[in-house]
Amino acid sequence: MAKNYLMTPGPTPVPEEIRNEMAKPIIHHRTKEYQAIFKDVTDGLKKIYKTTNDVYTFTSSGTGAMEASIVNVCSPGDTIIVVRGGKFGERFGDIAKAYGVEVIALDVPWGSGPCPADIEDLLKKNPSVKGVYTTLCETSTATVYAIKAIGEIVKKTDALYVVDVISGLGADDFENDKWGVDIAICGSQKGLMIPPGLAFCSVSEKAFKAGETSRCPKFYFNFKKYRKAMIDTDTPFTSAITLVIGLKKALEAINKKGVDNVIAEHGRQAEAFRQAMKALGLTIFSKSPSNAVTGVNAPSGMDADALIKLLKTEYGVTVAGGQEALKGKIFRAAHMGGIDKEHTMESIKALEAALAKLGHKFTAGSGIAVAQKILG
Amino acid sequence: MAKNYLMTPGPTPVPEEIRNEMAKPIIHHRTKEYQAIFKDVTDGLKKIYKTTNDVYTFTSSGTGAMEASIVNVCSPGDTIIVVRGGKFGERFGDIAKAYGVEVIALDVPWGSGPCPADIEDLLKKNPSVKGVYTTLCETSTATVYAIKAIGEIVKKTDALYVVDVISGLGADDFENDKWGVDIAICGSQKGLMIPPGLAFCSVSEKAFKAGETSRCPKFYFNFKKYRKAMIDTDTPFTSAITLVIGLKKALEAINKKGVDNVIAEHGRQAEAFRQAMKALGLTIFSKSPSNAVTGVNAPSGMDADALIKLLKTEYGVTVAGGQEALKGKIFRAAHMGGIDKEHTMESIKALEAALAKLGHKFTAGSGIAVAQKILG
Repeated sequence: MAKNYLMTPGPTPVPEEIRNEMAKPIIHHRTKEYQAIFKDVTDGLKKIYKTTNDVYTFTSSGTGAMEASIVNVCSPGDTIIVVRGGKFGERFGDIAKAYGVEVIALDVPWGSGPCPADIEDLLKKNPSVKGVYTTLCETSTATVYAIKAIGEIVKKTDALYVVDVISGLGADDFENDKWGVDIAICGSQKGLMIPPGLAFCSVSEKAFKAGETSRCPKFYFNFKKYRKAMIDTDTPFTSAITLVIGLKKALEAINKKGVDNVIAEHGRQAEAFRQAMKALGLTIFSKSPSNAVTGVNAPSGMDADALIKLLKTEYGVTVAGGQEALKGKIFRAAHMGGIDKEHTMESIKALEAALAKLGHKFTAGSGIAVAQKILG
Repeated sequence: MAKNYLMTPGPTPVPEEIRNEMAKPIIHHRTKEYQAIFKDVTDGLKKIYKTTNDVYTFTSSGTGAMEASIVNVCSPGDTIIVVRGGKFGERFGDIAKAYGVEVIALDVPWGSGPCPADIEDLLKKNPSVKGVYTTLCETSTATVYAIKAIGEIVKKTDALYVVDVISGLGADDFENDKWGVDIAICGSQKGLMIPPGLAFCSVSEKAFKAGETSRCPKFYFNFKKYRKAMIDTDTPFTSAITLVIGLKKALEAINKKGVDNVIAEHGRQAEAFRQAMKALGLTIFSKSPSNAVTGVNAPSGMDADALIKLLKTEYGVTVAGGQEALKGKIFRAAHMGGIDKEHTMESIKALEAALAKLGHKFTAGSGIAVAQKILG
């Protein structure tokens, strides 16, 4: 049977030893054995976030934790600044509106990041905003934002700094505490190498304080319940036990290597992939490419979705398409989590073959050669 | 290594072939392959619910779906009737209050079910209530409620009928459509034999209609988003893919046997267990015992938690304790999902040994004998 290379920006491949760990007979969650696992997971997450803040684990998709980041600190009528440069930035705005929270949108072209000075300007004009909501890696455009620089600006104000690091964590540089992030939202199926089903929020004391006056209703995603349960190393509601058990194994692997080394490794893969695409005469969609995922423009006149289909059916390489206006225009290949050098090289090989089949002209082997040189 | 018998009312043991299915390499969810799986899961759930209504799958614990059953149909200031006869009935009330929904509580003693006439009375006195919220099996007291009889009353009114079937489905009789249930909430880690992490709501047209004027804010748990995504056999947010894949296998096994046969089988196990306990001179806590789980009073003077600890450490049998006021007073052994005849017999054997060790007097072997006779 041909190998399959899953290169989508979530879910990413789950390493076999993690899958086997999750396949063991299930244990009960109100036990010392499980509490010890959950403690390791929480501590392991803090290391990767680089934070001493609480980190809560929700059983939900990342969107649930995005909702938590709004309903726990805002009240109806409050205003937040939302950076909208892709599908996930837009989602923050949609959630806010569902809860009666006003949105000042900083719209940036898809594929670009926000200019920190524009956020500074908005904060000056709107000093009472509750928070600035943005994204480390906007997955839909494969773009990494200047989260550190924006943090320098937000930390001088009363506004909370909320960052969606769902696809960026463990692939792009991120320092929760040094960069002054109040809430950072993550999901399990990207850099953390396990299946989807868990989501996380780091929560600063400043965010908790803001939460004291928050009047958005909440129950399942109420931070206070998670904080109270954390005293007993527990969650207020039954967690997705097997995913937590898998996460312990994944976090051990990442932290054993060191998160900075893991980020550097994915950075090399991303660089190798981008250089290979350029060698094949293709261009990168994003002006500020992320290490987590690369968006590549299809050659002029070629339907990106036809290329994606060919890659999957003929070569066993699954990449993602473009979303909304980018559908048919770009393809996206990820470099995070369980995606390794072999995936990167195989996907470049497959791309050379598929592009040639679809009539694109380039020097055969040139993509592979440049990637090989970078990856060693 | 000694075998472990997990007899807790969730999580229940996950059969090996389901665990192995979930341990296969992960697949992407925006694919025809996954859509086919998700369609099978949705159809399989409908068979077990006995419904033609939509059934939505959330990535959350059962509590998330309980929240969905309130926020999708109610508005702040609405009133609902909540049957409170245990921890999970109380939770409905807590969620309602968090969203500004008024609660008329029908408090029943723990271990008893609500009297349908009392609900009829409350509905007459409060004709504008939005819904009646209750539980098929109140897990905390191991009590099955008269859901069919209550349904006959509620269906004559404009009120919605909302039933938490989280621990009851697949163990206690349940007929979603025939009994006039508008929303039935379930979880994955009980009768459905997979790990926790998924929750479900069946939703009637009457519930959808009520939802049109609902002003409770919601996003992640918004039924409308799930209904819209269902057109493409999809979910609005990334599901816990591996759990959905495991659920397909579990539902196939249940539906192959036939849900009524599965319920009858668990009913026999429950009956065998209860008769065995009586033979050992113990009494059953509930006045209306569920097939899903049995609550047993510890012998007078014996700490139930000491018995539970001994069962686990010496005999590898894990049962649950009592919650809140019942802590130390009862133990609870489940009979649903992957819990089979072997579990039942081994737990009775272990109970005989542990009870004898703790000084309880009974005819040795009498529990095993009576259970053996029932289970054949």
